[in-house]
Amino acid sequence: MSRLKEAESFEKNEFDEDEDDEVIGGPTVHTLDGQVLDEKPALAPPPPQENEQVEQSTEETAPVFKRVADENIILDPEQRPESLVKIFKYIDDNENRFVQNLREAVGIQSISSWPTARIECYRMVQFAADRLKDLGFELELRKVGSKPLKGADEVALPPVILGTRGNDPKKKTVLIYGHLDVQPAERSDGWYCEPFYLTEEGNCLYGRGSSDDKGPVMGWFHAIEAYVKNSIRLPVNLKILLESMEECGSDGLDKLLLQQKDAFLTNVDVVVMSDNFWLGKTKPCLTYGLRGLCYFFCEVECGTKDLHSGVYGGTVYEAMPDLIWLMSQLSAADGTILIPGILDKVCPMLPEEEELYKNIDFDLEEYQQDAGFRALRFPGNKTATLMNRWRFPSLTIHGIQGAFDRPGARVVIPRKVIGKFSIRLVPNQDPESIEQLVKTFIKAKWEERGSPNKMLIYMADEGLKPWCANPFHPSFKAARQAIGWTYSQIPDMIREGGSVDKLMSFQESTGKNIVLLPMGASDDRAHAPNEKINKTNYIQGTKVFAAFLQEIGKLEKADL
Amino acid sequence: MSRLKEAESFEKNEFDEDEDDEVIGGPTVHTLDGQVLDEKPALAPPPPQENEQVEQSTEETAPVFKRVADENIILDPEQRPESLVKIFKYIDDNENRFVQNLREAVGIQSISSWPTARIECYRMVQFAADRLKDLGFELELRKVGSKPLKGADEVALPPVILGTRGNDPKKKTVLIYGHLDVQPAERSDGWYCEPFYLTEEGNCLYGRGSSDDKGPVMGWFHAIEAYVKNSIRLPVNLKILLESMEECGSDGLDKLLLQQKDAFLTNVDVVVMSDNFWLGKTKPCLTYGLRGLCYFFCEVECGTKDLHSGVYGGTVYEAMPDLIWLMSQLSAADGTILIPGILDKVCPMLPEEEELYKNIDFDLEEYQQDAGFRALRFPGNKTATLMNRWRFPSLTIHGIQGAFDRPGARVVIPRKVIGKFSIRLVPNQDPESIEQLVKTFIKAKWEERGSPNKMLIYMADEGLKPWCANPFHPSFKAARQAIGWTYSQIPDMIREGGSVDKLMSFQESTGKNIVLLPMGASDDRAHAPNEKINKTNYIQGTKVFAAFLQEIGKLEKADL
Repeated sequence: MSRLKEAESFEKNEFDEDEDDEVIGGPTVHTLDGQVLDEKPALAPPPPQENEQVEQSTEETAPVFKRVADENIILDPEQRPESLVKIFKYIDDNENRFVQNLREAVGIQSISSWPTARIECYRMVQFAADRLKDLGFELELRKVGSKPLKGADEVALPPVILGTRGNDPKKKTVLIYGHLDVQPAERSDGWYCEPFYLTEEGNCLYGRGSSDDKGPVMGWFHAIEAYVKNSIRLPVNLKILLESMEECGSDGLDKLLLQQKDAFLTNVDVVVMSDNFWLGKTKPCLTYGLRGLCYFFCEVECGTKDLHSGVYGGTVYEAMPDLIWLMSQLSAADGTILIPGILDKVCPMLPEEEELYKNIDFDLEEYQQDAGFRALRFPGNKTATLMNRWRFPSLTIHGIQGAFDRPGARVVIPRKVIGKFSIRLVPNQDPESIEQLVKTFIKAKWEERGSPNKMLIYMADEGLKPWCANPFHPSFKAARQAIGWTYSQIPDMIREGGSVDKLMSFQESTGKNIVLLPMGASDDRAHAPNEKINKTNYIQGTKVFAAFLQEIGKLEKADL
Repeated sequence: MSRLKEAESFEKNEFDEDEDDEVIGGPTVHTLDGQVLDEKPALAPPPPQENEQVEQSTEETAPVFKRVADENIILDPEQRPESLVKIFKYIDDNENRFVQNLREAVGIQSISSWPTARIECYRMVQFAADRLKDLGFELELRKVGSKPLKGADEVALPPVILGTRGNDPKKKTVLIYGHLDVQPAERSDGWYCEPFYLTEEGNCLYGRGSSDDKGPVMGWFHAIEAYVKNSIRLPVNLKILLESMEECGSDGLDKLLLQQKDAFLTNVDVVVMSDNFWLGKTKPCLTYGLRGLCYFFCEVECGTKDLHSGVYGGTVYEAMPDLIWLMSQLSAADGTILIPGILDKVCPMLPEEEELYKNIDFDLEEYQQDAGFRALRFPGNKTATLMNRWRFPSLTIHGIQGAFDRPGARVVIPRKVIGKFSIRLVPNQDPESIEQLVKTFIKAKWEERGSPNKMLIYMADEGLKPWCANPFHPSFKAARQAIGWTYSQIPDMIREGGSVDKLMSFQESTGKNIVLLPMGASDDRAHAPNEKINKTNYIQGTKVFAAFLQEIGKLEKADL
């Protein structure tokens, strides 16, 4: 799936993270209450869709959205267990040193997409390995092959760190995932400071990787350090997996995970990742879902060479109007997808699902302003906006390859044009059936068009499945309590609209629940100039991580 | 009009040439029989168009298409006047030297778009000036300003040669136009031989500029030489204008022509140009029409920055579907333009116009094969194909700027996209009213769409008017007889589908008829690798030029 992975990876300028499908091997998907749905789901609007009726089986599902409130998360700091009080104090006391440690990590220019920076990726691996050794981890650096980089020969990929600390069969085992590489950054891109020197300004720590993902990785190191240095017995066995090719599509990771299924990954009880972001800027979140992705190429060919529109215009069947027309059939003016059956497999809307959305801390106006777009599809409607971002599919036309795309005027009749569009998938949609629906639709439209030109419709790679975990899984409850101890708040349970492949690989190779436990805020500008992490997010996040390990330690192994 | 001129100039890989409007200052256009049309013209199919009715005023126009046959062009070589017999023999006798002279001209790498080759343009000007002096011309080298070239500072444009030979008030004055610059060429582009060494291979003379336009320029030099060296009195006064920026959009030419209207250009009776090509490979042609051009930019903006389709897809109004839909409204599947009123000003089809097309030597299959496209709009219909190339407008969608246009998959929601499309104009369409029609149509469609995004529709520059001369003008008859003396054939009267600006400037500044008298064949590959001219075209064309001067000499000044 490398093309899609890279597409996602190179693109994300905002918050956009990990994604996967649910239970290994099966097309079943958890609903929000953790039940497995088998029956054909129905759908409630928005958006309205022909031939779709809302069928709600209210009785069984009604109570589930009150579960979070029923969990009795303790928010009172006075009730913190003594060990956590000690650990939190240690973290606060070491704030300056922790910032300095992050500065050291940010100073290593581990840009995975630049061949010239490959040596820095190795330095970063060494830096992390040294720290893990100090914390008592046993380490293995796994080679994961090589790959030709732009403008360079085949270059070995940086090794993946596999670390293990503790092997007590009575304890649960937590696998922490993180990545050590970063996106490219140059001062001239628009950075106000040196991108590879962590610069403190008010509550902000500016620097490439500060939020994605060196800040969270250092947070995990410091959370563990807080146990070790205070001689508090670690409540869980720890495993850590740190890769250095994440920003290039996690090359070699899938294969490694598959290899390690019955080795390093065996006995893992829960997987936790932190390279994603809050929904907003102030309220902590936990992420339990991501959309999938089917990316389509629609190719229309009218000849063997580009022609001059003066010489040939009016006498030949041109490819562009055919392609333009085909793509104009995909969606209505309001954005509704017009492909018949596209919503058939979408999870039915549950009676109190709307309630869950209503309580989420999300400012529509701020969302629109930050993104800088002119109009929301559902102005003033927070629930519809979030639902169409997370739990309904969307279709985007990205562009056309092969036509005239530069500034100015060129009078070409392009010989072959390739339209690019994609559909974001949600539970229980699967790439295979979406591919079929799209192909059938486009082919029928092509028939209707009656053009003598040649048309091909195909999907880039095999697509990415949507992922939706059970937000009431005990590991999520543990995370909620960890946030409760730290922030005295119950976090919002959110999804994200993007698609990430590695979640799928982790879920398939461990068979366990994955908790996305973000540290950074929505305005951290990962991948963009002036990436930052708030110092409070960095320090409080470290406390959340420490508390999470403790809360997992309290659970029954059988529940995980 | 520089953008459009360059668009045309940089684009043409096939035959595609000069264009202009008709009589100075007026919106009137000649019909094929030389009458000025004032009434609103009606139109006959193809292509069919709503609200359009064929109204034919048959009576007056019926006989005109038989005029060519009635002209009694003499085709019998035995009847050649003695002076022409002498001149033709001289040209045949000097064939090898004339090829060698062309080799010398091709050897000068006068690429006008390369700053590093500017010195070669000056060398070429000197080369031509020396030859013209030898032929008895009085010369003026006019500076035409300077221009920044890619990767260089402001560079002076090569001077334009204004040459005069003879000033007899009893003689007619012929203005010859040609250009000395060439398109770039490098062996590695796919040339089988050195592009700047004229290579003879069978009947072909390969080399950059051999056909466009050094061959024709040398042809004119040699035609005049044949008179001079045989001590035959030149039948006309001669003026010659040679520019060296034609392949870059004829910079400085418009201004110079305007300046010289009452100086160098005064008393000109007819203008002749030869930098275009036959319709086919074997039969001589005369060109009396070219289409105009309106190039449109349609801009849709949905935000201030590109967005990630995972994060924002489904929640915002995207720009691409709006633009795609707008452009899908421009034409029907069969290529019919759907803009209301677009055909209102198109010249009415005259009763025997079809006859004129039927007799043209044009092979549909060869046309399709050479161009390499899959399907003709009018298969098996030569007349409809030529009419839709020359006398009906056509619409082409060229591409989209601002969307994702590279290979691979990128999940961007583009913030602003600019659709590019153009309409080729024919008599009596004018850019102003086409601009109005298109803007009105697009704005109405935008209203219908009801999108909250921002849309702009505008035209690149002011457009190029169509040009259609009177093919029965005495100067065209003179050209037909010149071809008759040389080839013993009556040439096809053709138009071309492209658009060229300089014709307009020449017509406006002289007020006289322009004869496009091509020397090269349709497969000469001007602008492409392995440009060639057939030796027979080069030598016979030189004879045609000499005979043309003689035939013009026979005309009454009042008829021109």
